[in-house]
Amino acid sequence: MPTLVTTEEVMFFDTDAGGVVHNIAYLRFIETCRTRLAGQMGMNMRDMVAAGEVPVVVRTEIDYRRPAVLSDLLEIHGVLESMERARFWCRFEIRRPSDGALLVTSRQALALVNLKSGRAVRLPGAWREQWGGAEGSLTSS
Amino acid sequence: MPTLVTTEEVMFFDTDAGGVVHNIAYLRFIETCRTRLAGQMGMNMRDMVAAGEVPVVVRTEIDYRRPAVLSDLLEIHGVLESMERARFWCRFEIRRPSDGALLVTSRQALALVNLKSGRAVRLPGAWREQWGGAEGSLTSS
Amino acid sequence: MPTLVTTEEVMFFDTDAGGVVHNIAYLRFIETCRTRLAGQMGMNMRDMVAAGEVPVVVRTEIDYRRPAVLSDLLEIHGVLESMERARFWCRFEIRRPSDGALLVTSRQALALVNLKSGRAVRLPGAWREQWGGAEGSLTSS
Amino acid sequence: MPTLVTTEEVMFFDTDAGGVVHNIAYLRFIETCRTRLAGQMGMNMRDMVAAGEVPVVVRTEIDYRRPAVLSDLLEIHGVLESMERARFWCRFEIRRPSDGALLVTSRQALALVNLKSGRAVRLPGAWREQWGGAEGSLTSS
Repeated sequence: MPTLVTTEEVMFFDTDAGGVVHNIAYLRFIETCRTRLAGQMGMNMRDMVAAGEVPVVVRTEIDYRRPAVLSDLLEIHGVLESMERARFWCRFEIRRPSDGALLVTSRQALALVNLKSGRAVRLPGAWREQWGGAEGSLTSS
Repeated sequence: MPTLVTTEEVMFFDTDAGGVVHNIAYLRFIETCRTRLAGQMGMNMRDMVAAGEVPVVVRTEIDYRRPAVLSDLLEIHGVLESMERARFWCRFEIRRPSDGALLVTSRQALALVNLKSGRAVRLPGAWREQWGGAEGSLTSS
Repeated sequence: MPTLVTTEEVMFFDTDAGGVVHNIAYLRFIETCRTRLAGQMGMNMRDMVAAGEVPVVVRTEIDYRRPAVLSDLLEIHGVLESMERARFWCRFEIRRPSDGALLVTSRQALALVNLKSGRAVRLPGAWREQWGGAEGSLTSS
Repeated sequence: MPTLVTTEEVMFFDTDAGGVVHNIAYLRFIETCRTRLAGQMGMNMRDMVAAGEVPVVVRTEIDYRRPAVLSDLLEIHGVLESMERARFWCRFEIRRPSDGALLVTSRQALALVNLKSGRAVRLPGAWREQWGGAEGSLTSS
């Protein structure tokens, strides 16, 4: 199953007055990883917007285990977990290589939504053929 | 159990090139509601930072049911759902009064974290006495 | 000239690890004020996107004089400063009523951009007739 | 004078319902470039927060010339422009290599602020010695 690792350096705008990375900022890190993972699976976001069908997050589960702080270098590990008829799931782990800490784990379900109707459409048969049988996991977990 | 409704008007910076509100923007709406709900429960964020113990989101579950669009007026309904020994749960619904649509539902678990040690501390006994027995729900659900 | 005051309460996501409001967050506060000021002038953003011509920021000047902190209640004062042939200028001041401090001053130039061509169009004659002669200022300055 | 080029790929969260990158998102791109430029000049943000003196943006000027869109690959060119007694200026250009377009130009003034007093302090003499005499410019301009 497709996997990808992206990296981020924590900026001031990622942090808050508690001195740690704000809970919402991690979701930007995850979106960047997810978008590149989708690109690896053949999805070009600009082309998909032009064609009127884009992958849309329909559910996020995210657990905040340990905080990242300013200037941390982080790795975001993403994997396609499963491909169903109408949605697919991705799994993410955010790790800090400097001390090996696992900071955040997350799962997201995505649907393919028609931008005009606002409704989810069935996923392409080719996706289910290519990725429908397996169950992706992060080697780190 | 404490409940609160806040309102938001969708700005350009809340939307994305898909023409809808971006999935991350709803979490800002929810944080504003949650912060005011916490204020109603007696938590002043500035005082808590000064005292070195702040409520921190440790888990978010969020389901995106229908999209909001630019200029929508939204209501964010928040409720304290339950108070445990080391964490408390809040539940949120984002609704669009103009058509009665339920757009987003979410649950968040929060812990009280000591900013110096980075560790969760036990919740104040007074909180468990006041809110520990009940189960909060949104009248709308 | 049209003027407006909006209010904001500083949330954790507005602050950074320096313990103050992040410089980018003030621009969201200003956008909310500007959008409502535009609404007062007759511009409905959703209708304008549908019609394919929207006001777009073409220049921002912003001075950060004193920092706001978590939980501050802020007032954003906005005024239409001048209406030219191809752009209009707005001026903003962010104030903290609790101590009367002037925290931020800003000017923004906006053009009306055709979303298909990406080009600025001439402003409606009616705007210049209504607001072209005067020079708006904030009573506070 | 220190110069640096960083790169960004435009994500959905950078765009808005007008179909282009939102004006605020470019300021995150610029902050990332500026932070790495500061790192090249010897400033480590985490150490500076710990030491209680951090560089703070006191003025931003930004001109939006042409819009970037979803999936664009952008280059952010940054340079230290001048070093004064109490502030230093950086200049930025955001370019799209695919068509050579110059999208955004910006200047920012920064001061060194003591986090406890909230006041600007004089810049280190070593900085003025090293960079005080020259005037930095972007080779592209």
